[in-house]
Amino acid sequence: MKVAKFGGSSLANGEQLQKVFQIVIADPSRKVIVVSAPGKRKSDDIKVTDLLIHCAEQGLNGEDTSATLEEIIDRYDSIVKELNLSSDITEEIRNTLHSLLSADKSNPDHYMEALKAAGEDNNAKLVAKFFQSKGVQAKYINPKEAGLFVTDETGNAQVLQESYDNLYKLREEDGILIFPGFFGYTKAGNVVTFSRSGSDITGSILANGIKADLYENFTDVDAVYSVNPNLVQDPKEIKELTYREMRELSYAGFSVFHDEALIPAFRAGIPVQVKNTNNPLSPGTLIVHQRSVQNGPVTGIASDKGFCSIYVGKYLMNREIGFGSRLLRILEEHGMSYEHTPSGIDDISVILRQDQMDYETEQRIVNLILTELHADEVKVEHDLALIMIVGEGMRQNVGTTAKAAKALADAGVNIEMINQGSSEVSMMFGVKEADEKHAVKALYNEFFVGVPV
Amino acid sequence: MKVAKFGGSSLANGEQLQKVFQIVIADPSRKVIVVSAPGKRKSDDIKVTDLLIHCAEQGLNGEDTSATLEEIIDRYDSIVKELNLSSDITEEIRNTLHSLLSADKSNPDHYMEALKAAGEDNNAKLVAKFFQSKGVQAKYINPKEAGLFVTDETGNAQVLQESYDNLYKLREEDGILIFPGFFGYTKAGNVVTFSRSGSDITGSILANGIKADLYENFTDVDAVYSVNPNLVQDPKEIKELTYREMRELSYAGFSVFHDEALIPAFRAGIPVQVKNTNNPLSPGTLIVHQRSVQNGPVTGIASDKGFCSIYVGKYLMNREIGFGSRLLRILEEHGMSYEHTPSGIDDISVILRQDQMDYETEQRIVNLILTELHADEVKVEHDLALIMIVGEGMRQNVGTTAKAAKALADAGVNIEMINQGSSEVSMMFGVKEADEKHAVKALYNEFFVGVPV
Repeated sequence: MKVAKFGGSSLANGEQLQKVFQIVIADPSRKVIVVSAPGKRKSDDIKVTDLLIHCAEQGLNGEDTSATLEEIIDRYDSIVKELNLSSDITEEIRNTLHSLLSADKSNPDHYMEALKAAGEDNNAKLVAKFFQSKGVQAKYINPKEAGLFVTDETGNAQVLQESYDNLYKLREEDGILIFPGFFGYTKAGNVVTFSRSGSDITGSILANGIKADLYENFTDVDAVYSVNPNLVQDPKEIKELTYREMRELSYAGFSVFHDEALIPAFRAGIPVQVKNTNNPLSPGTLIVHQRSVQNGPVTGIASDKGFCSIYVGKYLMNREIGFGSRLLRILEEHGMSYEHTPSGIDDISVILRQDQMDYETEQRIVNLILTELHADEVKVEHDLALIMIVGEGMRQNVGTTAKAAKALADAGVNIEMINQGSSEVSMMFGVKEADEKHAVKALYNEFFVGVPV
Repeated sequence: MKVAKFGGSSLANGEQLQKVFQIVIADPSRKVIVVSAPGKRKSDDIKVTDLLIHCAEQGLNGEDTSATLEEIIDRYDSIVKELNLSSDITEEIRNTLHSLLSADKSNPDHYMEALKAAGEDNNAKLVAKFFQSKGVQAKYINPKEAGLFVTDETGNAQVLQESYDNLYKLREEDGILIFPGFFGYTKAGNVVTFSRSGSDITGSILANGIKADLYENFTDVDAVYSVNPNLVQDPKEIKELTYREMRELSYAGFSVFHDEALIPAFRAGIPVQVKNTNNPLSPGTLIVHQRSVQNGPVTGIASDKGFCSIYVGKYLMNREIGFGSRLLRILEEHGMSYEHTPSGIDDISVILRQDQMDYETEQRIVNLILTELHADEVKVEHDLALIMIVGEGMRQNVGTTAKAAKALADAGVNIEMINQGSSEVSMMFGVKEADEKHAVKALYNEFFVGVPV
């Protein structure tokens, strides 16, 4: 039994829905289908969810919502027409949205959440009708009736444990189940949405709940790439990677699959397959607990900008018990989180995202470190990029560090920082932002070019 | 004006004292001479200070001290005779030690400290008499009269700031001043000794106090070596290194000059020269603030064993604000200090000296991390060695990391950890203890062999 989730671009118009239908019926084990709201049909299009948010804001502000509402309805209607479905579907969507817009506004969060979620909910109904029109046994599943209960955290709903048991019962249902992504219900009966990539989260929860053999995530790329295609042209696809590798890569700029969405599948040990709706025969990328395929030590390279480093030097720091924690407390008191703390004997650096710290805060922190910790020297270095080299095979492979460092040296890139030795599946290099692209290319050439796929 | 300190082996017998005399008079700027107690004459000899400690213990326990006392007096007497000095000197030493041994024992610390310090104090008197016998203007200086005041921390005295001003007045004294190392006086008038390498500390304080141009530290090696001679045969000598380099090297096994002794000279910016009493024409090693001589990026390689690593993995750790500090607090609550904390996205390792943690403590800590921090995995890896590559020129030198990592890879050494990026003058590699010697040799060959001196 499989859960298949289709993203917004896979459901943007009738043509895409035809592809989705063909994919679903091609494999009878595709039991639960999770759908997003209709996405962009072309790059300057507006997603239905964004239109709904706009419409809800207008409603809350007492403005006229009719034009936006028509735009939304039109999106569904064009799909209905394209697929020769009954116009009753459009009318039902119109009625639903009308009643949501004229609902009680005393709790603006509830009002907004219900409208945001309507994009997926109506689309699931539409997809179910479409499947039925093709003569297939399919039905829309309402998350409340299915028992997908969540916490009351607006835009950041957390699934309640009992949901998994409830959802397990979906296994008994006949036919294909079309489930709207992105939201669940509180026990009080209110709609609450998940965070970013919410439909991915729904799919992952369902995969866990029904104990699926596989969670398929259909999107618009053939695979997870070994490196950001914006930095390296036409990079190799990753055939298989582990949850840990995916997680490490997604930390530093890999946005294919949001890591929060991996958790429910990860906890149930269900493999996740990233596939392309527009190219379903491509094998895609499989995310698993343990990996069998090994192509050299490195699986992927990711990078992210916008870091800075606070260097603190103090003669004999090493003998001051608690120096490190006092330093970190100063940062915590300013509400800042840090990423890494490489240390020497008499110095320590704190690597953090620099958008947390404006010039004034930086000055204040530097002064506190000088006056309270009596540091000899405090220096802030801005505009650093972190590059992650990720691969399960790295720890067993003597020489990966040497290869990586040599590739960077040959490219003339100075290594500002190395963090290696905690994670068994990654190695991190800090470089100046200006060197990022150059460095990533050099590492990609070292580890991927000329290596068999 | 120079301060010259001579260690125990430089003062072990009359022959050595003749060398010291020749060295001192060869340079009229050698104004303040700091002396240790007589050291070992041969490898199975006992240092006078150790005899004094034994004697004091006997005195405190009410045991007979006469045999030990005679052994001590005999050590001085043999020097007196060798140098044809007056036997009055021996008698004065006998009287002094007698009165110390029969002093008030109500405070055992004070009793012990006074006897421990007597080794240096009597030797300073002896050396002064010897210099006078050679027709040179020289006198013994008593630390109390000179105003070397310290805190009342037995065996770990800290100099009081006012001492520096007091000692500055020594500049006005005529002739050569012979100053006993290892101890100062509390304001209440009690003798308190410094920590390990106490005479080095005295010399450094005096250099700071009199604003010396140079602090010469005479010992029994020609120089500070670039690597431990027990690991690499006949290693290169270091001509010049900075305080920071010395400090980083001394952290990991370089024991030539204890880092606490560097502080007063460091604060006053006074260069320190390590020289050999037995080969005074050898240039020795100069420790300075800023270094002019550059021979490649690496100045020295040091290593130390006995570390372990506590690995903690938890999926999505990165999102848990404060995870790191809670982990470190568990260690702090067990009275443990840690060295480094390399971190990945969802994992962090703590590197610490493993002698702090017996098997039971280790199990308790592992359990606490699992139960209180809900870690997915906790692993302890024992018997790690840390290798430091130290050099002021390293940061400017693209490729040092690559060279070092390649040397280790070629030698088949797996790098367990790299800590680079905080210190500008060092890079740290963690390897298994079994690989230590092999790794140090490989790095030495890479950075020193074939490189011009």
